[in-house]
Amino acid sequence: MSGRLSVIGLGPGDAAHVTPEASASIAEATDLFGYGPYLDRLTLRADQHRHVSDNREELDRSRAALVAAAGGKTVAVVSGGDPGVFAMAAAVCEAIEHGPPEWRDIELQVVPGVTAMLAVAARSGAPLGHDFCAISLSDNLKPWDVVETRLKAAAGAGFVIAVYNPISRARPWQLGKAFEALRETLPSTTPVIFGRAAFRHDEKIVIKTLGEADPAQADMATCIIVGSAETRVIERSGRAPLVYSPRQSAGGSR
Amino acid sequence: MSGRLSVIGLGPGDAAHVTPEASASIAEATDLFGYGPYLDRLTLRADQHRHVSDNREELDRSRAALVAAAGGKTVAVVSGGDPGVFAMAAAVCEAIEHGPPEWRDIELQVVPGVTAMLAVAARSGAPLGHDFCAISLSDNLKPWDVVETRLKAAAGAGFVIAVYNPISRARPWQLGKAFEALRETLPSTTPVIFGRAAFRHDEKIVIKTLGEADPAQADMATCIIVGSAETRVIERSGRAPLVYSPRQSAGGSR
Repeated sequence: MSGRLSVIGLGPGDAAHVTPEASASIAEATDLFGYGPYLDRLTLRADQHRHVSDNREELDRSRAALVAAAGGKTVAVVSGGDPGVFAMAAAVCEAIEHGPPEWRDIELQVVPGVTAMLAVAARSGAPLGHDFCAISLSDNLKPWDVVETRLKAAAGAGFVIAVYNPISRARPWQLGKAFEALRETLPSTTPVIFGRAAFRHDEKIVIKTLGEADPAQADMATCIIVGSAETRVIERSGRAPLVYSPRQSAGGSR
Repeated sequence: MSGRLSVIGLGPGDAAHVTPEASASIAEATDLFGYGPYLDRLTLRADQHRHVSDNREELDRSRAALVAAAGGKTVAVVSGGDPGVFAMAAAVCEAIEHGPPEWRDIELQVVPGVTAMLAVAARSGAPLGHDFCAISLSDNLKPWDVVETRLKAAAGAGFVIAVYNPISRARPWQLGKAFEALRETLPSTTPVIFGRAAFRHDEKIVIKTLGEADPAQADMATCIIVGSAETRVIERSGRAPLVYSPRQSAGGSR
């Protein structure tokens, strides 16, 4: 008997940005799998089972969730933000591809959510208003030279860049190297947004230029948006500035 | 007396993916501005005023909304998807930058939503599971050679590509040219997802290879996701295939 598995995005972290579909899928689940801080956001009933795992055990967590679903449970795997962006949906697919054939019979649903870069963008104006990319700075799963090549290609072609997983205790130097690489391609006046915990009680949005951007400004809860050469800052007296990327573009990086 | 202006994302189009924050902002508004089909999604009270405008009048719509907000109204500007991704937030910022100084005093809120590529990704697996970019094919606001340069740069560096505004009556040839440009860089086996009206009653998700991708498959309501050379397809008997981009990457386009 095969059950169901939903991979659910909880959005940036406050209840007001959790979709009704995500809330409904959580309410239906008998078994919920996830990284502790994401499961901690949920109010569960006594008959719902929590399966907490560590941040870096995504494939093992996926397999455990698939085993439960294959056994007939109604399973939810929860992610912050959107589950398809540097989160659990790809890990679940990978586990299915390399797992037993019966896992392909499980009814799989991915429930989208507001991913971090959209939340940070909303809190700072419209920095993603034109072509943009999203890149993870983690070199756990790809060589660092691939990260640098992608940053330079994106900046050189005029994409705004949203940086996920900028820094951690185990990866302290990558963000500094990324800023160095970007300074070779973009003007030092390019706006950089450090968006920490957008829409949460401890939100902190800081706007710098690429020239003055300091990796120490970021932590694991930060999503960074690096503008293109066309991104603009509107100063407002008594209010935070607005950062936006105009809808029209002449292209290029300078 | 200055009012408030919210720029609101309605998500992919069904009520289950509208965030509580978006619903609350709509309920508070006295005056709602938007493209007709987006306003048509809302159930408004008799005391709320609809201001419908055409799809391509984004700057005029922004100015009208700012005039109303500056006059003390509680204004909502509605977008499909997320307002910060090829939608109204950048147009509102642009109008503020070039408008009268008092528009900078208006309390501006951007309410994020589930943008089209996240909805299409959710309905097809996890194609955005690794580094990706979003690009508009519209050459109304940038020269076509910029579009082509960006497509080639992104594909060459190994980004998955989400294509917004792929085709319209006024822009019939751009998508074919985009596929041609991508075929110079990516293997013909690269998965391409045509995601039309994701999560709506008339949803249609079609998976092709880049070699067989036909622009006639797309219309104005379609968001297209072009995989990287590493994107994979999992066949499932009796179920739609899953497309995903693995979390690990060796980089490059072949």
